Amino acid sequence: MSQLDHKSEAWSALFSEPMSDLVARYTASVFFDKRLWQADIEGSLAHAAMLAKQQVISPQDLESIRKGMAQIRGEIESGAFQWKLELEDVHLNIEARLTQLVGDAGKRLHTGRSRNDQVATDVRLWLRGEIDLVADLLNELQKALLKIAEDNVEVVLPGFTHLQVAQPVSFGHHMLAYVEMFSRDHARMLDVRKRVNQLPLGAAALAGTTYPLDREFVAQQLGMEGVCQNSLDAVSDRDFAIEFTAAASLLMVHVSRFSEELVLWMSQNFGFIRIADRFTTGSSIMPQKKNPDVPELARGKTGRVVGHLMGLITLMKGQPLAYNKDNQEDKEPLFDTVDTLKDTLRIFAEMAGGITVVPEAMERAAMRGYATATDLADYLVQKKGLPFRDAHEVVAHAVKAALSHKCDLSELPLAVLQQFNPAIEKDVYDVLSLRGSLNARNTLGGTAPAQVRAQIARHQARLGA
Amino acid sequence: MSQLDHKSEAWSALFSEPMSDLVARYTASVFFDKRLWQADIEGSLAHAAMLAKQQVISPQDLESIRKGMAQIRGEIESGAFQWKLELEDVHLNIEARLTQLVGDAGKRLHTGRSRNDQVATDVRLWLRGEIDLVADLLNELQKALLKIAEDNVEVVLPGFTHLQVAQPVSFGHHMLAYVEMFSRDHARMLDVRKRVNQLPLGAAALAGTTYPLDREFVAQQLGMEGVCQNSLDAVSDRDFAIEFTAAASLLMVHVSRFSEELVLWMSQNFGFIRIADRFTTGSSIMPQKKNPDVPELARGKTGRVVGHLMGLITLMKGQPLAYNKDNQEDKEPLFDTVDTLKDTLRIFAEMAGGITVVPEAMERAAMRGYATATDLADYLVQKKGLPFRDAHEVVAHAVKAALSHKCDLSELPLAVLQQFNPAIEKDVYDVLSLRGSLNARNTLGGTAPAQVRAQIARHQARLGA
Amino acid sequence: MSQLDHKSEAWSALFSEPMSDLVARYTASVFFDKRLWQADIEGSLAHAAMLAKQQVISPQDLESIRKGMAQIRGEIESGAFQWKLELEDVHLNIEARLTQLVGDAGKRLHTGRSRNDQVATDVRLWLRGEIDLVADLLNELQKALLKIAEDNVEVVLPGFTHLQVAQPVSFGHHMLAYVEMFSRDHARMLDVRKRVNQLPLGAAALAGTTYPLDREFVAQQLGMEGVCQNSLDAVSDRDFAIEFTAAASLLMVHVSRFSEELVLWMSQNFGFIRIADRFTTGSSIMPQKKNPDVPELARGKTGRVVGHLMGLITLMKGQPLAYNKDNQEDKEPLFDTVDTLKDTLRIFAEMAGGITVVPEAMERAAMRGYATATDLADYLVQKKGLPFRDAHEVVAHAVKAALSHKCDLSELPLAVLQQFNPAIEKDVYDVLSLRGSLNARNTLGGTAPAQVRAQIARHQARLGA
Amino acid sequence: MSQLDHKSEAWSALFSEPMSDLVARYTASVFFDKRLWQADIEGSLAHAAMLAKQQVISPQDLESIRKGMAQIRGEIESGAFQWKLELEDVHLNIEARLTQLVGDAGKRLHTGRSRNDQVATDVRLWLRGEIDLVADLLNELQKALLKIAEDNVEVVLPGFTHLQVAQPVSFGHHMLAYVEMFSRDHARMLDVRKRVNQLPLGAAALAGTTYPLDREFVAQQLGMEGVCQNSLDAVSDRDFAIEFTAAASLLMVHVSRFSEELVLWMSQNFGFIRIADRFTTGSSIMPQKKNPDVPELARGKTGRVVGHLMGLITLMKGQPLAYNKDNQEDKEPLFDTVDTLKDTLRIFAEMAGGITVVPEAMERAAMRGYATATDLADYLVQKKGLPFRDAHEVVAHAVKAALSHKCDLSELPLAVLQQFNPAIEKDVYDVLSLRGSLNARNTLGGTAPAQVRAQIARHQARLGA
Repeated sequence: MSQLDHKSEAWSALFSEPMSDLVARYTASVFFDKRLWQADIEGSLAHAAMLAKQQVISPQDLESIRKGMAQIRGEIESGAFQWKLELEDVHLNIEARLTQLVGDAGKRLHTGRSRNDQVATDVRLWLRGEIDLVADLLNELQKALLKIAEDNVEVVLPGFTHLQVAQPVSFGHHMLAYVEMFSRDHARMLDVRKRVNQLPLGAAALAGTTYPLDREFVAQQLGMEGVCQNSLDAVSDRDFAIEFTAAASLLMVHVSRFSEELVLWMSQNFGFIRIADRFTTGSSIMPQKKNPDVPELARGKTGRVVGHLMGLITLMKGQPLAYNKDNQEDKEPLFDTVDTLKDTLRIFAEMAGGITVVPEAMERAAMRGYATATDLADYLVQKKGLPFRDAHEVVAHAVKAALSHKCDLSELPLAVLQQFNPAIEKDVYDVLSLRGSLNARNTLGGTAPAQVRAQIARHQARLGA
Repeated sequence: MSQLDHKSEAWSALFSEPMSDLVARYTASVFFDKRLWQADIEGSLAHAAMLAKQQVISPQDLESIRKGMAQIRGEIESGAFQWKLELEDVHLNIEARLTQLVGDAGKRLHTGRSRNDQVATDVRLWLRGEIDLVADLLNELQKALLKIAEDNVEVVLPGFTHLQVAQPVSFGHHMLAYVEMFSRDHARMLDVRKRVNQLPLGAAALAGTTYPLDREFVAQQLGMEGVCQNSLDAVSDRDFAIEFTAAASLLMVHVSRFSEELVLWMSQNFGFIRIADRFTTGSSIMPQKKNPDVPELARGKTGRVVGHLMGLITLMKGQPLAYNKDNQEDKEPLFDTVDTLKDTLRIFAEMAGGITVVPEAMERAAMRGYATATDLADYLVQKKGLPFRDAHEVVAHAVKAALSHKCDLSELPLAVLQQFNPAIEKDVYDVLSLRGSLNARNTLGGTAPAQVRAQIARHQARLGA
Repeated sequence: MSQLDHKSEAWSALFSEPMSDLVARYTASVFFDKRLWQADIEGSLAHAAMLAKQQVISPQDLESIRKGMAQIRGEIESGAFQWKLELEDVHLNIEARLTQLVGDAGKRLHTGRSRNDQVATDVRLWLRGEIDLVADLLNELQKALLKIAEDNVEVVLPGFTHLQVAQPVSFGHHMLAYVEMFSRDHARMLDVRKRVNQLPLGAAALAGTTYPLDREFVAQQLGMEGVCQNSLDAVSDRDFAIEFTAAASLLMVHVSRFSEELVLWMSQNFGFIRIADRFTTGSSIMPQKKNPDVPELARGKTGRVVGHLMGLITLMKGQPLAYNKDNQEDKEPLFDTVDTLKDTLRIFAEMAGGITVVPEAMERAAMRGYATATDLADYLVQKKGLPFRDAHEVVAHAVKAALSHKCDLSELPLAVLQQFNPAIEKDVYDVLSLRGSLNARNTLGGTAPAQVRAQIARHQARLGA
Repeated sequence: MSQLDHKSEAWSALFSEPMSDLVARYTASVFFDKRLWQADIEGSLAHAAMLAKQQVISPQDLESIRKGMAQIRGEIESGAFQWKLELEDVHLNIEARLTQLVGDAGKRLHTGRSRNDQVATDVRLWLRGEIDLVADLLNELQKALLKIAEDNVEVVLPGFTHLQVAQPVSFGHHMLAYVEMFSRDHARMLDVRKRVNQLPLGAAALAGTTYPLDREFVAQQLGMEGVCQNSLDAVSDRDFAIEFTAAASLLMVHVSRFSEELVLWMSQNFGFIRIADRFTTGSSIMPQKKNPDVPELARGKTGRVVGHLMGLITLMKGQPLAYNKDNQEDKEPLFDTVDTLKDTLRIFAEMAGGITVVPEAMERAAMRGYATATDLADYLVQKKGLPFRDAHEVVAHAVKAALSHKCDLSELPLAVLQQFNPAIEKDVYDVLSLRGSLNARNTLGGTAPAQVRAQIARHQARLGA
């Protein structure tokens, strides 16, 4: 029988009674941390290669470990591997199986390391890979939004502030706002990655080890950028995980804002877009319904990710050095955050292709809110020399008149406009049109189609789209 | 073939394409909400009974529904039931199976209700039951702590403020502090229960229904205290779930405080208690270790529950009426909160029986910190008539002297004490002893053994312990 | 010179150097906790009365303390009181001034208490009063909403689920949903109040006191419902404050939902309401703007209160017993939460009177979304005997036809409707009207005007409105 | 009279009634945002310089604006400036005063900008400066910790895992763990700074402007690294503020961990350190107390900062584009976060100099917990060829024996040790000493004094210390 068939056998001499079943279940992590198996094997192989290089284990041992791990990899991939609760976690499950397969070589694998530095290494390796996937998905989503932007540069949306019609904006420009947000999220992910991609292995339980490890060799093997320089810090801090979850929360806040807008635009009162049927659901009771379930659910999932961030911070607050068991609770929130991000980004990138824009609804809405009022004020300033504050007041009166006529500013006769300021001339109608207004905002970052096209080109170059 | 083999068939005529697989997975809830199956069946049976009573369905239909549901119950309990992702949630899975089993009667069950009021009802029924379990476990934990208290009324612990030795307290008294906290948690749970135990069913999708329902009859059948009086509110609010999670967070904060103390007391630097081996774990690398994994993990799980609270609040913030798909995200945090509470309370009640108190370590620690300094000041006030502020200063000088003599106040010779105030007499040594100090705090809520015993008796009566 | 001109003089003999200025500022609380002055004086007077009754102080001392406190009250109210940072907190500031005014009687006031139980008492007394104010304001807001409901029972709003038009609802009914929410918030506040209104005084530093206090007398004097039964718990827990903040967060979540709707309804795309100019703001640049600043800001302030809840939980997590200085951080979030609630409730109650409903915009919107589709299905079930699922499918086809005709269901000719089901007769148009739909939902909690009126009457009776 | 004596006069023509007083107070921000005055003036001057360069305003106007701003700067610095609630915010207060001082030139300053881009610019400019201060303070704290580390390389602390004695570590090594954490916090702050230091000005209200602005010139003038490339995004996102608060929360979590340890070490049960009297407080009731108020309060303030993070996320969740009034709520949490960080870092850097280490207490504690048990196992592996798992078991028996002899492993006679494994020889006592254990962990990041000294040198070079 293997020495490790029950984890508690690893420390039995001092213990006068076996672990209670309730405790075994409460403290076990294998049913969620088995997801780390690839990182665990990868880390173990690098550790073994280093031990052999340093002559702590023999070349034969290394060979045995490699063979055993190859078999275990196959067993896990095929579903044949037997995960055991009584072996508590992914590390002991794999190590016990290895020892079963290759004997003493397996027992020697754990030389110079501890589960404390092993789990920290596994989580970092795994998270690094997931960050790369998230970063790729963020780029895919940006490309999908860029495509919508490109197709809708000339479509006029009423830009809102306070959800009140403010000024006309290009729908493409509006999409680019989200491209900016997601590109910052991408940059944040890469900044997190730098701090994730550091090697704790070799910190052992908390103080380093008495074996002549070559930690930089292991880091190199694993493609890590550096070695954690302090063993206590290496096994105890989880700030890299919290930082990731914070970046994820910001990403989801951006998703929630986009979702809010999709839901609004799908509402009959806006009617600005349609989302393809395959992304919507109906009602079991109301036959007329098409519901934007995907953006709503994504908006809801923001809470989930933010909750995980708060949970992880609460977890770490006030913990003394070094490793405490509290830290086992870092994994589920992290795993679920990654899953939520990946699912959400993937579905949004796909859904973007199913959005149909209804330009006439957008233009109609823009006409309803005196979106060109600022343009009239600017006209009075730039062409007629009024100070801005005075021009603002003139336009307020004009809007009041248009409201009582139930028409747009551009529909007021020139004579009426001239009542508010006699200098107004026929050319005013150029600035009062939605398109005139749009074209006029032609500075860097502005909504003029020329600017929007330049931005699209810049993003395409950046994304290789 | 049943009409409901795919949920999307329930709304197909308007839909030009099937739901994307990605969307089906993203929006499905059956893999977590199937846990509501008992509540779902219970609610459906009460609804059917009412429909029959109101002659909306026939007695035969009711009979068929009851038979079908009995079979489904059996299938689920035996594990034979086939949960289908494409049927999205627990409700459609059960309803589809019912229709398969009993035909049109099954189709008539959904009359006068919608999934919106159905899911709200299921969650409330389920949560009511779980609150009762949590409340029972809270009582069990209180009884277990009461047992420790009873056994340790006369054991003297150094009471800390700022983790500095402050005044001697009875260890039993200290345990009772947690009994108070958990009794308030219990009271909070019962307050939440009142607001959970209200019936949404009959609110239908959002506006009520055109069928002549008798909602009060359904509430009575289900043991609910009342009927939600507004249909929009009934289907859209989740404040009952958030309130529960807030009460759960407070409970876990109390658990975290107790855990922190257990971890401290187990530390060699305190050595105040031992926890039975079956509740501790060892180390795979350090052979001397016995780690208090259970309290550490519980302390960590506080983060999990607090995270769920924050997630749910984020979820609801800013949602317009009535039901939005965001709300589907209410379940997993709620389920996990309940699981965490139940596991934690159960293991703590059991672990309490495995705590061994080390009175001599506690007393030794109490002697190290001049725990009776306040008693000396009180002696000078009460017996010698000094104003408190002056007495306080006298004692500070005495402590300084004891510090330089490296002894306790009670070990200073009378002559030395009299240097600080000549009125001090031999009877001062009565108040300078730990036990003298303890006995002196004999007012309601104080730490004197007589008070502690009275409190234990009160709690025992309350808990029927 | 008073002994207490600097707080550090209260513990000087043991201290070899004065507190650093930086530390004095970092640890001082007087600039925010002075807000507790009334509770502090009230608590001190009750304590003094009890000390006299128990003959711990003389009647003359009590008289002096009362006179001194009366003068201090006057000084604070008039602004003449000198708050001193070096006296750290409200308690020492008032006590020092009292001693300056009345000499030794002032020094005797602190007998049998400590700042630990004193501050806990002050916060509870203060919070109890604030809860009463918040509860009153919640009732005022409910009355204001009830007034809108009463005036708009017959106004038809498109009820939304997923922000898609679902079924017609009475605007009065919609308002009542918020009345329900705020009435639950009110109930929660009263539940919190029970747990707030308990007396910690007499717990002293942590262990009770050696003086013969009558704590129940003090509780009675202060109108408190009970006495904290464990001294350690009394000085160290802040769950009452966290519970209050959790109830406040729920209240603000409800405010955020109402705000979201007000902002939507004010948007030109809805145009369902107007908010009086005195509650809106304009733009310094866009002359046509009227922005719903108040609901937006209230929606934003939800974050503030939720943040305080999270902060307080983080604060308490993992604290060992008994009092730790961390707890000083409980006050600012609590104060700001109370301020935010009171300001927000007051302004919402006032703003409700400034809301103008635009019934025609609501009806127009209801017509756009096939709000009566469910009624057609119910008609087929109830009058023509179709199973609901089949009727649902028939209606989906009818909606499809209406969509292609760009008209409402009620505008389809009978012949067209009969194509989908030949049993449809002329009376179908009764159920296809908005008002017909509304009237049909005439069960408890439903949106039929008769139900809405009954609910209004119930709420008015409850609120004495 | 200036046109701007009341902010509402800026939009009066459309408004039929003045703003309610309650609303004016609820929506005003001047009493907290006046802190931005320097950034506001700096931003305005750069904007004016650009307007002049672009010939939008005349050189005379620029000159007037500069003179006016210089006077305003003086007035604010001297306290003579009159902040007016009715002018709502810092921007209108300064602009109104400018117009009062320099007339039409002042009115022209607002050309081509809006308060939306102005406030975003001000917050970024201000935050950039504060990040630099925080980064400097982080370096100061690291230097102070490095000093302690340098003085205590050879001091042996019992390293804990699970707060159980694990292995001996150098106290200097332990301090370096915090240096690592704070150096990561520093790196995070610099990453945030990159994203903060981008210019929104020129985005105007939301869509850009019709004036020929040179935004890159303004960015250059203000030392900003780039220009926000999308006007909608520029005025509406606050992710830079949330990211800062997340980095601040991590920093405070690190502070909370260090504080927890300081509090533990100060406790009589540890007695590992003393903190100078000027950083501690006493008790008004217990004359013997010296309380570590500063670390406790800092630990508590973690909650405050985490709360602000949660509040800001809640604030942004689900907001549609572009600017909404909710965003006004971003300032107070940000300001308070900055204040808390700066105060806490400053006081910790100072307090580090007041820490006295008690090496003998640390060594005594290390001896109590069989800290060298792992070394005995390693000895058996490395010198006697046992597999690690077998050696582990041998040591467990040895510890059991030592426990029953109530002595340390190093105090067991050789004969006793040999009972557990006969191969053990006299040289075992070298590895059983604390110092032997320490020296043996001599790999990169390990606790051996040689490693610790190398790390100190690395950090000193990095910090220029």
